[in-house]
Amino acid sequence: MVEFSDLDAFRAALADMPDVDAAARDGAADRNSQLTKPPGALGRLEDIAQWYAGWRGNSQPRISAPQIIVFAGNHGVAAQGVSAFPPEVTAQMVMNFEHGGAAINQLARAAGAQLDVHALELDRPTDDFTKGPAMSAEDMLAALSTGWNAVRTNADLLVVGEMGIGNTTPAAALAAALLGGDAADWTGRGTGVDDTGLAHKTRVVDEGLALHKGKGDGIETLRRLGGRELAAMAGAIARARSLRIPVILDGFICTAAAACLAHTHISALDHCLAGHLSSEGGHDRLLAALNKSPLLSLGLRLGEASGGALAIQIVKAALECHSGMATFAEAGVSGS
Amino acid sequence: MVEFSDLDAFRAALADMPDVDAAARDGAADRNSQLTKPPGALGRLEDIAQWYAGWRGNSQPRISAPQIIVFAGNHGVAAQGVSAFPPEVTAQMVMNFEHGGAAINQLARAAGAQLDVHALELDRPTDDFTKGPAMSAEDMLAALSTGWNAVRTNADLLVVGEMGIGNTTPAAALAAALLGGDAADWTGRGTGVDDTGLAHKTRVVDEGLALHKGKGDGIETLRRLGGRELAAMAGAIARARSLRIPVILDGFICTAAAACLAHTHISALDHCLAGHLSSEGGHDRLLAALNKSPLLSLGLRLGEASGGALAIQIVKAALECHSGMATFAEAGVSGS
Repeated sequence: MVEFSDLDAFRAALADMPDVDAAARDGAADRNSQLTKPPGALGRLEDIAQWYAGWRGNSQPRISAPQIIVFAGNHGVAAQGVSAFPPEVTAQMVMNFEHGGAAINQLARAAGAQLDVHALELDRPTDDFTKGPAMSAEDMLAALSTGWNAVRTNADLLVVGEMGIGNTTPAAALAAALLGGDAADWTGRGTGVDDTGLAHKTRVVDEGLALHKGKGDGIETLRRLGGRELAAMAGAIARARSLRIPVILDGFICTAAAACLAHTHISALDHCLAGHLSSEGGHDRLLAALNKSPLLSLGLRLGEASGGALAIQIVKAALECHSGMATFAEAGVSGS
Repeated sequence: MVEFSDLDAFRAALADMPDVDAAARDGAADRNSQLTKPPGALGRLEDIAQWYAGWRGNSQPRISAPQIIVFAGNHGVAAQGVSAFPPEVTAQMVMNFEHGGAAINQLARAAGAQLDVHALELDRPTDDFTKGPAMSAEDMLAALSTGWNAVRTNADLLVVGEMGIGNTTPAAALAAALLGGDAADWTGRGTGVDDTGLAHKTRVVDEGLALHKGKGDGIETLRRLGGRELAAMAGAIARARSLRIPVILDGFICTAAAACLAHTHISALDHCLAGHLSSEGGHDRLLAALNKSPLLSLGLRLGEASGGALAIQIVKAALECHSGMATFAEAGVSGS
C-alpha cells in the first residue's frame, strides 16, 4: 500500500512513469500487416490493438482481466442545490452497486470485468468550493492513495468511473479552470436539472472559478475544485500507468479528473483512450483539448464507468482480432 | 425448408410479416422509467432495449443466442478487374472462416455468437451485369431460399454479412439503381483499389445502371445487379422478420441488399438496426436513405459481418441493463 506523504511526492511519481514499448508496438504493426484482411479494413480496431500492444510490451496480447473501479464521494457544493437528486442518493447507489442492481453491474458482467467499488467517506462531504478549497492536502492525499491502491496489479485493462451527487459541478469547474472559457461553456445538465437549475449551477461554477482559478497546477486545482472520487480516479489512472495497464476513460467527470494529470504532465494520459462521448455538455470539448477521440457515441450520461465498460468489449474484440487472426501465409490466402 | 416457387411468392411473404408488439414495447418503456438511473442517462441503450422488447414481444428480454451468418458468392463482374484481390480469394477466405482464422471468427467468439458460413456456388460466378442480368430467376430463388433457411429458429438476434471478391461493385449499382444519383456517388474503394481502379469501377457500375436501372422493384433489381450472397442476405433478413428475430445490419454490401427489401416493402427493415458506419463510400448516404443511424463508427470496411458482430455486444449490454437493473423501489434509491 502506497501512502503519498505530500502532493509533491505524487507529482514526482507522475514525472517518473514508464513510456510505451516501441518495439512491441512496431511488432504489432508488422503482425497487423500480415493478417487476412485488406490493409486498414479493421479501421480503428487496428490502431487500438497496436496502441495496447505497445503499452503491454507484447506484440500479440489478449485481454483477460479487465478491472472497473467506481469511486463514490459526496460534495459540499451539493448543498447549493446543483443536482436533480438529493445527496443521500450517493450512498443509496453504493448499496445498489453492492447488491448488483445498477447499470454498471450489468455492464461489468457483460464485459467480463472485475467490478470494485470504493466509497470515500460519504458521511464527510468535501468543503463547498465557493467558500474555500474542496479538500485539505490530507483529504486529497488520502483520496489519491485510495485510487492508487485500488488498481489490481494483475489487471490488463482499467476503467475508472464515479458516483457522487453534484459532481458534474466540480468537473465543470475543473475543466474551466484548466482549459479556459466561461463556466457556461463547461456546465451541463448532469442528472437532469432544468433551465433555472442550469443557470444556478453555472453561477456556482463561476464562484468557484473566481476563488480558485490560476492558483496552481492540475493537482492543486483538483484539490481546490475537485472531490474525493475525482482525486481517486486520478490516482488510479496514474497507478495504471506505473503498471503498464492501459486505461479507458469514462465520461465528463472522469475525463475532467484525468485532465488534471495531463495539465501537470503532458504525457500523463498517453496510456488512456476515450471510451465514449457523453451527452453531458462540455465532454466533446474536453476530449478535443486532450486530443482524444471517443470510441463510442451513444448518448450516455450516467457516469458509474458505464461508457468505459461498454468500450471494454470493443478493445477486447480488437485484441482478439489482432492476436487471433491467421496471417495470409498461415491461411493460404492470396494477397492484394 | 422453404423453397420459393417464384419471385412473387417471396414478395407475398414480404407483404405478410409480423409487426412490432406495441404492448411489449410500451411495457419496456414503463420498466425503463423505473430503473435506477436518471431518465435518459443510458441514451441510445434505452431506445435499443425498447425496440428489441417490441420485436421479441417480451418487455424484459435478454439475448442469449445471437447468430451470425456469412454468405459467400462470386461475381461475373469481378472479371472486369474491379477489386484489388483476385476472385479465388472468396473460396480461400471461406476456408479461413472454416479454420477459425478470419476476423469474424474472433468477433463471433467475443460476442458469444453462433457463426454459420454458407458458400453459394463459388465455382459458378453470377453473370456479368454489364452484359445482362447477374442472376436468372432460378439462381435468385435458390440464393433467397438458402438465406431464408439459414436462420436458426431459436436465434434471438441475427447479423448477416458477406464475403465475395468484387461485391462492392454490385452493392454500389444496387444503391444507385434504387436511390438515384450517379455511379460516382455510390462507388468506393472496396478492399482498396487505387484512383485508376476507382474510375474503372465507376464506369462498370454506370454500364450496369444503363442496362438495368428502372427495370423493376427492389427484388427484380437485386436479381439484375446483385449477387448470390446479397440475395441470401435479403432472404435471411426477411426470414428473421417472420420469426420476430431482430437484425443488426453490417456494412455497405449488407445494407444495399437490405435496401432491396425496403424498396419493395417500406416497412421491411423495421426489425433491423444499423450496426456500424463503414468507411466504404456511400454507406452513410445509404443508411440515411433508410433512416437508420449506425450504432458504431470505427472506420471498418471489411464486411464478413464484422461491424454487425461488434454491435451485438452493445445490443446485448443494452438488454442486460434493461432487464437486469433494479428499480428505484427495489433498490431503495430516492428519485429525482
